[in-house]
Amino acid sequence: MKKINVGLIGFGNVGTGAVKILSDRKHFLSDKIGLEINIKKICDKDISSKRNVSVGRSQFSKDPKEIINDPQIDIIVELIGGIHPAKEYIAEALKKGKNVVSANKALLAQEGRELFALAQDRGKSIYFEASVGAGIPIIKSLREGLVANKFYSIFGIVNGTSNFILSQMSNNNCTFNNALNEAKAKGFAEKDPTLDIEGIDSAHKLILLTYLCFGRFVSLEDIFIEGISQVSLADINYAKELGFEIKLLAIAKKQSDELEVRVHPTLIPKMHLLSSVSGIFNAFYVSSDLAGNLLFYGPGAGQLSAASAVISDLVDLTQGLKAGMFRPTLNIAVDKSIKKLRRINEIESRYYIRFMTVDKPGVLAKIAGVLAKFGISIASVTQKERRKAQVVPIVMIIHEAKEKDLRSALEIIGRLDIIKEKSVAIRIEEV
Amino acid sequence: MKKINVGLIGFGNVGTGAVKILSDRKHFLSDKIGLEINIKKICDKDISSKRNVSVGRSQFSKDPKEIINDPQIDIIVELIGGIHPAKEYIAEALKKGKNVVSANKALLAQEGRELFALAQDRGKSIYFEASVGAGIPIIKSLREGLVANKFYSIFGIVNGTSNFILSQMSNNNCTFNNALNEAKAKGFAEKDPTLDIEGIDSAHKLILLTYLCFGRFVSLEDIFIEGISQVSLADINYAKELGFEIKLLAIAKKQSDELEVRVHPTLIPKMHLLSSVSGIFNAFYVSSDLAGNLLFYGPGAGQLSAASAVISDLVDLTQGLKAGMFRPTLNIAVDKSIKKLRRINEIESRYYIRFMTVDKPGVLAKIAGVLAKFGISIASVTQKERRKAQVVPIVMIIHEAKEKDLRSALEIIGRLDIIKEKSVAIRIEEV
Repeated sequence: MKKINVGLIGFGNVGTGAVKILSDRKHFLSDKIGLEINIKKICDKDISSKRNVSVGRSQFSKDPKEIINDPQIDIIVELIGGIHPAKEYIAEALKKGKNVVSANKALLAQEGRELFALAQDRGKSIYFEASVGAGIPIIKSLREGLVANKFYSIFGIVNGTSNFILSQMSNNNCTFNNALNEAKAKGFAEKDPTLDIEGIDSAHKLILLTYLCFGRFVSLEDIFIEGISQVSLADINYAKELGFEIKLLAIAKKQSDELEVRVHPTLIPKMHLLSSVSGIFNAFYVSSDLAGNLLFYGPGAGQLSAASAVISDLVDLTQGLKAGMFRPTLNIAVDKSIKKLRRINEIESRYYIRFMTVDKPGVLAKIAGVLAKFGISIASVTQKERRKAQVVPIVMIIHEAKEKDLRSALEIIGRLDIIKEKSVAIRIEEV
Repeated sequence: MKKINVGLIGFGNVGTGAVKILSDRKHFLSDKIGLEINIKKICDKDISSKRNVSVGRSQFSKDPKEIINDPQIDIIVELIGGIHPAKEYIAEALKKGKNVVSANKALLAQEGRELFALAQDRGKSIYFEASVGAGIPIIKSLREGLVANKFYSIFGIVNGTSNFILSQMSNNNCTFNNALNEAKAKGFAEKDPTLDIEGIDSAHKLILLTYLCFGRFVSLEDIFIEGISQVSLADINYAKELGFEIKLLAIAKKQSDELEVRVHPTLIPKMHLLSSVSGIFNAFYVSSDLAGNLLFYGPGAGQLSAASAVISDLVDLTQGLKAGMFRPTLNIAVDKSIKKLRRINEIESRYYIRFMTVDKPGVLAKIAGVLAKFGISIASVTQKERRKAQVVPIVMIIHEAKEKDLRSALEIIGRLDIIKEKSVAIRIEEV
């Protein structure tokens, strides 16, 4: 049986999982795919730790060059994470005629434009299913299953940490800090959770999804990013009373000939499937012109789940290699109807707004007056509590308005002496 | 640019959609896939009807042999439906060295064992994404995206007609007959809706899903099938009060070394995503050992949605053909840990039960007494209404019990003089 040699750079959590599966399911897989995937060499800085998987001493190396320069190795799997030297390893491997599998979303989001171009130039492929949604086959589905489709939008719950925190707040009525601490205790959040809770990780994934759906490689700077650290339990509860859940969404959405790319807390109607995605799960809601509206849901992280995606990529590459194809990836189609990116100021949205005001007659009239000057109309309004001579919340849903008009109105309202705290505005998506 | 010639047999709704997309998106697709998909010949009994798609007169034929015997045609797409002569056309095409795309779930469910074996024997492939879940890439995901996984179970809402009817009953509090009539009026149900509402169509799809997940080709006779025509509005409403929705599920589930395959109305907890799948939508809830629990959701029917799947299959085949691969399909792995099929009598399940009894003291004691004799314990019980001297419903949830014990108990209870109508028992799946 033909053997495809694979070199693994990075023998951490996911790498160990992949090696273990390839070894435990050797015959299961070779029966399916008609060849053997052979992990010829494994490289890691740490080659001495116990990993509970049987690997021959001779397979190990401390020097990635031993893999990159090995002419018998057909595919390298990069699982070290970080930008450097992962980027250099991948570039070098492509230049040496190897195909690449990577789970490195930060790298591909930041340097993908260059790396994908290099791969194309060399007639090689970079596969990256594990980088978004772990074992959920979202990348394969967008690239192959929906190959004939044009896309209107993709809405993703793509960060398990943030979704866990928001779910805990909503389901258990706890504060952001308590939920974050629980996430840390359960291993769902890193010691420094900034990348996750401030939306950066979601934005990295959004870059890759936007590339797959619209053929555009946007930069991190192109994406409007707002994390969940400012989401209060009060707003989650008020939103719930109004029939919404608050989720951190990664959104890429075509509006006429413009594309919106943004990551922010979003009110989603409770009727919508996305609002039921709880805990560390991920979900992708895709609107396409032929296959309609689709949802893909599953665990967005985990050793075996990510390893499942890595092996799916390996199998795809081996099928191409088996047949002597050099570049099995389908090309990404550029949506030429998109003329430019729409900046956040230009988007139109419904909003949830909470004002903290003095409890006096005439307050609402003043606020509504300013909103009206900007052509903003109110869909509903509730004064939530009345505590004499204290600050009270006024919760409002407004009809479709331009972000910049709303921002201007909020700035003016913020200067009124009836306003006692910073107002909160959260976008609503009907999805 | 290399051209792959395709012959289409069956120029109805889906066929017209596929031809239209291939023509409208000719460059979009060839840019992606690196070759041209050329519909060389189209065969249909009716070649004169207007179809709103531009096809040259010379492409048409009334004789499928013209396609099957054309050595320049690499792939045939079978979209005529029905068993004969579709089966003969596909078999003939495989023998002539062609790969096949089919949307014909009834044919593949009934004759697939023979046809897939023939394809394997000839080193050719039958692709059938459109046959289950239309444009939802569930088959590709099971076959390729989850290639490294073993499966515990798949639960599918796979029949849009039945799901529409049950959703209407649940959301609009209408009877089965009213919902069915609405489905007919909207074009969601056929004049004779038997195949859909009696679970046959779901069973056909379950055969294909079981084959993909477990490598076993079961027969229609192996599947326990119960449709939705006996589901009453009362049961839907009582189930709802208890926190459940009733859905028609197609279930393939491994229990130790046995496999259960069944289609029946099922109570699903409202918390579960499957319970929120409404209207004509389909969903697949897949439990796998590496990638975890996944949901795939989308429209399960429709001209463009099915055509999207047909084109995805065509593209997969062309990628193999481009590379000179004769058989791009991955083999199906047989789950050797499954020793036999578990018949319905042997399954264990929680159940929802409704008894219609006289309204007298002691009724519950009698029923509970019989259940206890069979070791069946009651989780909750409610007497729903009290109308003096009338028949009243007693609604019960019972703990895990063996189907055959429950059936025996129900038979004995049915003979008690306190029972005034046939009792209803519906299985509960925690999923």
